[in-house]
Amino acid sequence: MRMALIVQKFGGSSVADADRIRNVARIITDTYKAGNDVVAVLSAQGDTTDDLIDKAAEINPKASKRELDMLLSTGEQISCSLCAMAIEAIGCPVVSLTGWQAGFHTNSGYGNARIKRVRADRIRTELDKKRIVIVTGFQGINKFDDITTLGRGGSDTSAVAIAATLRADLCQIFTDVDGVYTADPRLVPNAHKLDEITYDEMLELASLGAQVLHNRSVEMAKRYNVNLEVLSSFSGKPGTKVKEVVKTMEKTYISGVAKDKNIARLAVVGLKNSPGIAYKIFSLLAKSKVNVDIILQSIGRGDTKDISFTVSKADREVAQKVLEENKDAIGFDHIDVSDDIAKVSIVGAGMVNNPGVAARMFEALYNAGININMISTSEIKVSVLVNVAEADRAVRVIHDRFYDEIGGEQ
Amino acid sequence: MRMALIVQKFGGSSVADADRIRNVARIITDTYKAGNDVVAVLSAQGDTTDDLIDKAAEINPKASKRELDMLLSTGEQISCSLCAMAIEAIGCPVVSLTGWQAGFHTNSGYGNARIKRVRADRIRTELDKKRIVIVTGFQGINKFDDITTLGRGGSDTSAVAIAATLRADLCQIFTDVDGVYTADPRLVPNAHKLDEITYDEMLELASLGAQVLHNRSVEMAKRYNVNLEVLSSFSGKPGTKVKEVVKTMEKTYISGVAKDKNIARLAVVGLKNSPGIAYKIFSLLAKSKVNVDIILQSIGRGDTKDISFTVSKADREVAQKVLEENKDAIGFDHIDVSDDIAKVSIVGAGMVNNPGVAARMFEALYNAGININMISTSEIKVSVLVNVAEADRAVRVIHDRFYDEIGGEQ
Repeated sequence: MRMALIVQKFGGSSVADADRIRNVARIITDTYKAGNDVVAVLSAQGDTTDDLIDKAAEINPKASKRELDMLLSTGEQISCSLCAMAIEAIGCPVVSLTGWQAGFHTNSGYGNARIKRVRADRIRTELDKKRIVIVTGFQGINKFDDITTLGRGGSDTSAVAIAATLRADLCQIFTDVDGVYTADPRLVPNAHKLDEITYDEMLELASLGAQVLHNRSVEMAKRYNVNLEVLSSFSGKPGTKVKEVVKTMEKTYISGVAKDKNIARLAVVGLKNSPGIAYKIFSLLAKSKVNVDIILQSIGRGDTKDISFTVSKADREVAQKVLEENKDAIGFDHIDVSDDIAKVSIVGAGMVNNPGVAARMFEALYNAGININMISTSEIKVSVLVNVAEADRAVRVIHDRFYDEIGGEQ
Repeated sequence: MRMALIVQKFGGSSVADADRIRNVARIITDTYKAGNDVVAVLSAQGDTTDDLIDKAAEINPKASKRELDMLLSTGEQISCSLCAMAIEAIGCPVVSLTGWQAGFHTNSGYGNARIKRVRADRIRTELDKKRIVIVTGFQGINKFDDITTLGRGGSDTSAVAIAATLRADLCQIFTDVDGVYTADPRLVPNAHKLDEITYDEMLELASLGAQVLHNRSVEMAKRYNVNLEVLSSFSGKPGTKVKEVVKTMEKTYISGVAKDKNIARLAVVGLKNSPGIAYKIFSLLAKSKVNVDIILQSIGRGDTKDISFTVSKADREVAQKVLEENKDAIGFDHIDVSDDIAKVSIVGAGMVNNPGVAARMFEALYNAGININMISTSEIKVSVLVNVAEADRAVRVIHDRFYDEIGGEQ
């Protein structure tokens, strides 16, 4: 096998206890013994981060994010040193590095910091010594030399950042699923694993609630053209490759069906039909850090129009409050809020060149008697809002409509 | 109150749970609110370090010390960030710093590193901003930027090192006892707390098994003339001051009686009565990292002589093995090993100018029918080896002999 540089990332469930750490050590050392340079990025063990957050909340529910990051960053330091010990037991040379030792420099956004650069001199020196390098995910230091954490999905982002900096041949994201599926296998029995998927498709799937990879890491992989592979740390099977262009696109129109129940819809009803209204609403929401997903504006009927949008359930209250507080400035009749909805989406680079994909999705829902509340489309995605009680069934009938027809390789 | 710079150190039992951390935060903020600059050095919570050692042993009983230090150093990072959060809750400005952030530079002796220097720029900057600074004890970094730990008593040493570097007015060591006692209060009912004690007396007491302060920290305090105070984090009472010269020495001949059961005695019997024998034995032991305490050489009788010495119980096996392996080179008849012994000692700078102190100790033991196996004396110390079963009684009768007579201030 040609000598390659491989970055491997293992999530919290993959290192949850001593046996699983030994399993991860075996995967890493097998890759190393096959002649590759290996940098492994680890998350904290299992529930460690949540346990630490509970400890902090007991002492001070309003603790500063600076001190929280100081606390939380210990989780990865523990899992990484333990994994290094497991690799020592196997007999391979190894060194574990914290975020600052590995050269992760971030901005100062404690709790949700962005990576500015990776000064990977230390990692390179250790690789030159033929050592396996274990790096704490999820963390870095800012310009004050204070410890920061990267927020949700941070360890995936750490792994991709190292892979980009070192121009690694491959960045493998080990998790507790086999790869990326055409739909949630627990929900859709004949969902099947994809061998390959494009960055853009993965981005759409990730933002649609497929919890496999965090968007930040996929965006970074796309920007630096890092070859990703999502695979299971338990099964030993090949996973799904995420890359710029995939080989066999003609066979399938869509690469997946996903659903997201964690949304709420707000409809601002009775807006004046004058310019600048949308700007007013969404700049107010942006100032309040509310992330807006789908936006729909009705065609104005005479004097008034409606604007509907979806937000995550966590942001719903803030969004409603900020709009009510500015009711006079915006000028509307009332706000209609709905929590009982879910977003169901199909994603696929193939649909660009295949008209009628959206129509086929709507047809499947119509045949199943499922009502569509809102529709939103992009080049490689079609999303609909449906009643939350019908979301799972919607995923199944859409999946069947596409994969029965084109003969998915289940 | 005059503005002062005070370093406070809190041990593992003082920060064992959320309530105790809040108590420590109160002590620190009270000192700060009284107008002082405060740097607090914390150990890991309660049994954290032992729990982490267990975790490591489960994965790899022979883990490298480099990775063990990486693991163990998280304990203080957790206690320090939690304590900072508790201080935030009280409403005082605070920042917690790891060993490397606080500028602790050590040699490379993982697991038992020595502090080379403290580059305290960051601490000074934070103090200038009128912040309370919380520093992780027990740890630093070496020239490779790798994390090291300082070994037993490390946090005391960290605190004294900061106090020395910053020329602090006082270094308070908070622990679970009120101060330094003339004997173990659980053993000797009329033992009393000393208001003051000299560095040298404290050193002798520490090495004799009084677990209040670690020797390394007292040695450093003596070298840099750091004013120490040992006091309880629970009682709120004044503790014992440790300094170069104490005020009222004339009243007492001895400042304490201590015992140490963790020793073994080896007697090398039938040595040739020729020069260089002692050198051979003790250089062999030194090469095997065996720490020898008391050494006694019998007066040669004709052709042969005996050399006896004590070591800690942990070193006994190694010491015996290395001597047996070199039996021919050294030339002796056999080794006599005894585990059933304890060392009982009296310590006091006052005994230098008061002949007969040792005699009074021996008299007390004689009156109690306690047999003395070995005797060793220094300027401010007299130690005897007795049967381990009689050690506690020996401490009591010696204590009574001195404090009944001179009217100890119990």
